[in-house]
This record gives sequence, C-alpha cells and structure tokens, in this order.
Amino acid sequence: MMTKGRIEAFTDGVLAIIITIMVLELKVPHGGAFEDLKPLIPVFGSYILSFIYIAIYWNNHHHMMHTVQHVTGTILWANMHLLFWLSLVPFTTGWMGENHFSSASVFLYGIVLLGAALAYFILQTTIIKSHGKTSILARALGKDLKGKASPILYITGIATAFVNIWISGALFIAVAIMWLIPDRRIERTLRDKN
Amino acid sequence: MMTKGRIEAFTDGVLAIIITIMVLELKVPHGGAFEDLKPLIPVFGSYILSFIYIAIYWNNHHHMMHTVQHVTGTILWANMHLLFWLSLVPFTTGWMGENHFSSASVFLYGIVLLGAALAYFILQTTIIKSHGKTSILARALGKDLKGKASPILYITGIATAFVNIWISGALFIAVAIMWLIPDRRIERTLRDKN
Amino acid sequence: MMTKGRIEAFTDGVLAIIITIMVLELKVPHGGAFEDLKPLIPVFGSYILSFIYIAIYWNNHHHMMHTVQHVTGTILWANMHLLFWLSLVPFTTGWMGENHFSSASVFLYGIVLLGAALAYFILQTTIIKSHGKTSILARALGKDLKGKASPILYITGIATAFVNIWISGALFIAVAIMWLIPDRRIERTLRDKN
Amino acid sequence: MMTKGRIEAFTDGVLAIIITIMVLELKVPHGGAFEDLKPLIPVFGSYILSFIYIAIYWNNHHHMMHTVQHVTGTILWANMHLLFWLSLVPFTTGWMGENHFSSASVFLYGIVLLGAALAYFILQTTIIKSHGKTSILARALGKDLKGKASPILYITGIATAFVNIWISGALFIAVAIMWLIPDRRIERTLRDKN
Repeated sequence: MMTKGRIEAFTDGVLAIIITIMVLELKVPHGGAFEDLKPLIPVFGSYILSFIYIAIYWNNHHHMMHTVQHVTGTILWANMHLLFWLSLVPFTTGWMGENHFSSASVFLYGIVLLGAALAYFILQTTIIKSHGKTSILARALGKDLKGKASPILYITGIATAFVNIWISGALFIAVAIMWLIPDRRIERTLRDKN
Repeated sequence: MMTKGRIEAFTDGVLAIIITIMVLELKVPHGGAFEDLKPLIPVFGSYILSFIYIAIYWNNHHHMMHTVQHVTGTILWANMHLLFWLSLVPFTTGWMGENHFSSASVFLYGIVLLGAALAYFILQTTIIKSHGKTSILARALGKDLKGKASPILYITGIATAFVNIWISGALFIAVAIMWLIPDRRIERTLRDKN
Repeated sequence: MMTKGRIEAFTDGVLAIIITIMVLELKVPHGGAFEDLKPLIPVFGSYILSFIYIAIYWNNHHHMMHTVQHVTGTILWANMHLLFWLSLVPFTTGWMGENHFSSASVFLYGIVLLGAALAYFILQTTIIKSHGKTSILARALGKDLKGKASPILYITGIATAFVNIWISGALFIAVAIMWLIPDRRIERTLRDKN
Repeated sequence: MMTKGRIEAFTDGVLAIIITIMVLELKVPHGGAFEDLKPLIPVFGSYILSFIYIAIYWNNHHHMMHTVQHVTGTILWANMHLLFWLSLVPFTTGWMGENHFSSASVFLYGIVLLGAALAYFILQTTIIKSHGKTSILARALGKDLKGKASPILYITGIATAFVNIWISGALFIAVAIMWLIPDRRIERTLRDKN
C-alpha cells in the first residue's frame, strides 16, 4: 500500500543530515595555528569512524530495501526505530571525541552502536516476516554471520570500556572493517533469481 | 497542475531535518563521566517524545498524500502552514527539556502540538474539499475520531500545565500512543476500491 | 542533456534546509518562564516573515520549473546564484531579530531580498532565452508586473531603513502578501495549451 | 544491481546540507551596526569561494553520473570517500575565515580541496574501469586536462601557504574559475552518440 520510494527518500534524508551534522562537532578553534587543531584530533578520529558507520548503514539499508516489495506499517516503524538510534550517533561521537575517549563515553558509543544493530536486526526480521521465508532477503542472508557477530563484538566492546578503552575501540573498528568487506549476498541472490 | 512528488519531497526534507536537528539540543557535556549526562536526561526524554510525534506526522502525511490526485495552491499553502508549526517543535522540545518541564515550557509545547494538529486538520479539510466528499480520503477518515480527540486532549494538557505538569505530560504521551496504534483506515479504503 | 529532476531535488533540499535552519536562530533561553521568551519575540517575528518568503520562492520556483523542458549549464548556474542569495536569509533574519530591527540589519535584510529577487529574475530570463519567446513561461509571465514591482518595493524599503524601519518592514511584508495572493498565470497558460 | 537514483539522491542531500550548513559559520554578531559585520568579511569571502566549489562539485558529479549505467559497490564507496572530503569543507572554510586566512588555515583548506580532487579522480577512474575504455565517460574526458591541472594547482597553493597566502588564494580561485568555464565534453559526447 505504502510506496517504497518515500521511505527510502526519508531515510536517505535523515542519514545525509546525520552524516553531515556530525561535522559540526568539529568546532572551529579560535587560534589559527596548527597546534590549535590538536584538541580536535580525537574528535576527528571519532568523526571518521562514525562517518564510516553511517555510510555502512546507508549501504546495507539500500541493499535490504532493494528486496522489499511492499511496505507495511510495522516495517515503517521498525525503520523509524533504526533512525532513532542512528540519530544519537552525532551526540555520542562528539562526547567521545571531546572527552578523549573516556570510559563512560566509549561505553555509551558502544550502547548506541548496539542499539542500532538490534534495530537493524528487528527491521530485517520484520521484512522477512512479511515477505516469507523464501523471499530474496531471507535466502540472501542465509545464516547472517555478520549480523550475528556484530552484537557480540559490540557487547564485548561495551564490557571492556571500563577495563581498557583500546580493546573497545579495536572491536568497534573491527566491526566496521568486517562490514566494509564487500558482501555480495543480496546481489548474488538477486542475480541467481534472474 | 502541480506535481504531488515535489510537495512530498519538500515535506520529507523538512521533516527529516526537523527530526535530526532536534538532537542538536542534546549539547555534548564537557565532562566525560556518566554523571555529566544527568542534566541531559529531561532533554533526552523530551527528544524521544518529539521524535515519535514527527514520525507520526510523517507517517500520516504519507498516507494522506497517497489519496491526493491533484495539488492546488491552497493545498500547498496548507501544507506549508503545517510545516511551520512542526518547525517550532525542536525549539519547544529544547526549552522544555532544558528547563526540566517548567509549567510555561510544557504549556508552550502543548500550544505547538495543538497548532500542528489544527494545521493538519486544515490541510485534510482542504484536500477533501478539492477532491470531493466521496473521495478516498473522505471515506477513509469517516468520523475521524482520532483527529477530533487530539485537539481536545491537547487543550486539556495545555490547561493543566500550570496545575500539574504530569497530567499534561501524560496527555501528550497518550495522544502519541493513540496515533501509534495502527490505523488502517486509508489502507483499507484504498484496498476496497481495487 | 541535464535532467530537470535533479536540479529540482537539489533546490528542494537547499530550501528545506534553509527554512528549517532558520529556526536555530531561536536560541533556547536558559530560564523556564514566559518572560524568558520576551527577547525572542522580534526573532520570532522575523522568522515568520522569512519562512513565508522561502515558501514563496519554493512555490514560484516549482511553477517556473514546470515549464522548463531542458536544463542548460547557464540555467543551472543561474539557479545556484539564486540559492546563494537565499542561503543568506537565515543570517540576515537572525541579525535583524536579535538586534530588534536596527536600521543596519533591516537595510541588509532588504539587500538580500533584493539580491534574491534579481537572481530570480535572471534565472527566469535565462529560461525564457533558452526556450524561446513563445514558450509557456514567456507567455505566462506576460508583463510580469509582480516581478517588476518587487525590486522597486525592496529598493524603497532599503532606502527608508535609515529613516524609519517601520516603512521598510511594511514594504517587505507588502511584497510577501502580494506574492501570497494566488497567481494562476502559469497554471492558466499550461491549461490553455492543452 | 544498485539503482543510480538513490546514490544521486544521497549525494544531493549531503551536498545540499554542506552548502547550507556553511552559512552557520557566519555567526550572527551581537551588535546591530554595520561595523559589527566587519569581522565577518573574511568569513563571508571564504563562504563565497566554498559555495562555488561545492556547486562545481555538484554540477560535475551530476554530469558524471549521467554516464553511469550500473552502480557497483566500489563506485558507491568511492562516492562516499568523495563526500567525506567535501564534508570537511565547512570546517576548513570557517577556520580560514575566522582566522583571517592564517597560513595554517589556508594550508589546510588546500589539503581538503586536494583530497576532494583526488577522491573525485578515484571515483572517475572507478566508473571508467567498470564501464570500459570506450564508455561515454572515458571518451568524454579525453585527456582530462582540467582534472590533471587541478591537483597541480592545489599542491602549488598548499606549498605557498607559508610563503604568501595571496598566491595560494589566487590559485584556489583560479581552479574554481577554470571549472566555471562551461565544459561541454560530456554533453557533446552524449549528443554525438545519439
């Protein structure tokens, strides 16, 4: 009943704004020398990581939506739920960067990543439910190892935030790299079908 | 004459920005410990409520537009009027959150919600007028109980803001929940037609 | 060669952001009482005026684009030029509001309105040139009284800013009202053609 | 597999936000006289230059995408890489403007321009690789003199930033003008094909 186009357009809009608004946390320093940029280095580092995360979400969302044939009210709200978690990324990115990766800020960053991952999983499950177990998405995901590994890695990263933030950081980066490696499951399944 | 697509795209853009810009009211605190987040809790609470409200408006707008066949100048301006009220939501959300739900801020929050509800009602009426009483939207709305109950609940919430803000808060949350419950009137009417 | 859709989408995006970003000039006050909102009243007044102006530009742009059949490089840059002037509206709106309509701020507000009006006129002329004098747009505009009256009223408003800002304000509001009155030239011409 | 439309829409969204968000660096001054605007003049100058740069990128991106027939994962990530560099433009623009074109800020501005130019080149190469050497884009670019001259001019501008910022500024403006001169390569090649 609902058109896929408008849910995609709205999601694109929100993600485009999130990814661009994050850069506002890079507050222009008052001094004009290179050393004035020093305090911004951790903010910049967290910005790069979050930029990649939002880009991955956009990419995966794009592919997943490709398989959707009809948008129900439940899919729409599951999508809003995902956007809610992602909308918190600029805040946690800024907090983590400005406080030089304090344990609490790394912990919260992980919580938001975990929340987004679970929201994505719920959205995925909702789509599969309404399209059937033999749908393109269901077959493409298969065992969905990446989808299952991510929350485990996030939870580990959250747990280690008060022990050693470098372990947490390494885990959060590892998940990003894992998703950056091309994943052709959906593309392949779509091609096989034709 | 006018294309439906561009009014939808503009509305989507504005709503996507409103929903994302609200998060900027969550100002990154200078300290890096959990207790530094404490003052943000009411801001975060009001953010969640407003996020849900904007999402509901987007959802309902989406469905309503589905039934529109031609966009007149009056529809366009009624839509702009709605966007004007919604554009004030980030401000009232921030004011309410930062002042720990002071009576005045809860009052104003209710006024903006009421303004948006009336603007939505005007837009709806404008569309029905230009499409006829037997149009899809007119038939789908029926008695439009929700649409009529909302302003009454808002007005009650506004009136109680100086008596007890918890009553106001409960009423504003109640309206949100009422709209979250799936409303399949338009979908059903469209389906019956085919 | 170039597709009309993407220039429309980009313009919609920029206008949607301009109209929404302006609201950020309404800085959330620290106090939670009504009197804390008092200093914001002039900012709010200038916000309403600018909101209507951007809405008018979006509306007129929308109609004008309707008549465009091919987008040349010159049209594209004339459009960017218009967006440049409109992008300055949030700044002049904020400056005017925060300084309680000081002469200088009203003067500058008028300059930006004039710049946008001239940029719109250039865009219009560019489109007519590339589509021919018998094109829909050329015939629809006719003598283009509104388009010619606006700059004159703006210039008068700019000139009176250092004499009496109320005259300037009245003139800027008058132009907005003039454009709000439905203008069916393009719609009628398009209809006549069919 | 992937649709061209959504990558265009996302890019349009990000560029529209970047171009509009830059204006927020023009902080509304507290005084209401003309002299209060004086400190903003360099910020305004850098804003104009960056506005033109983003507009050029949007324009060129638009034309390049016109020749794309299928979007691979590599193209998508090359595009994200370009958006990353462009997302840094508001920050470097603000820093350069607020510090009256200090050597370090001009240097960094050049670095970001160079980064964006290289990212654009990578995106272009990626598209040509996946579409073949006889593709429209490959033939349209020919020797791609502009594309090759730009990085050289940027590097010269970066190198002279600590000698004389006026040379750097002149070079960065020169590149912008070079791209503003209509470039009909792609349009011509597309036309020849039909």
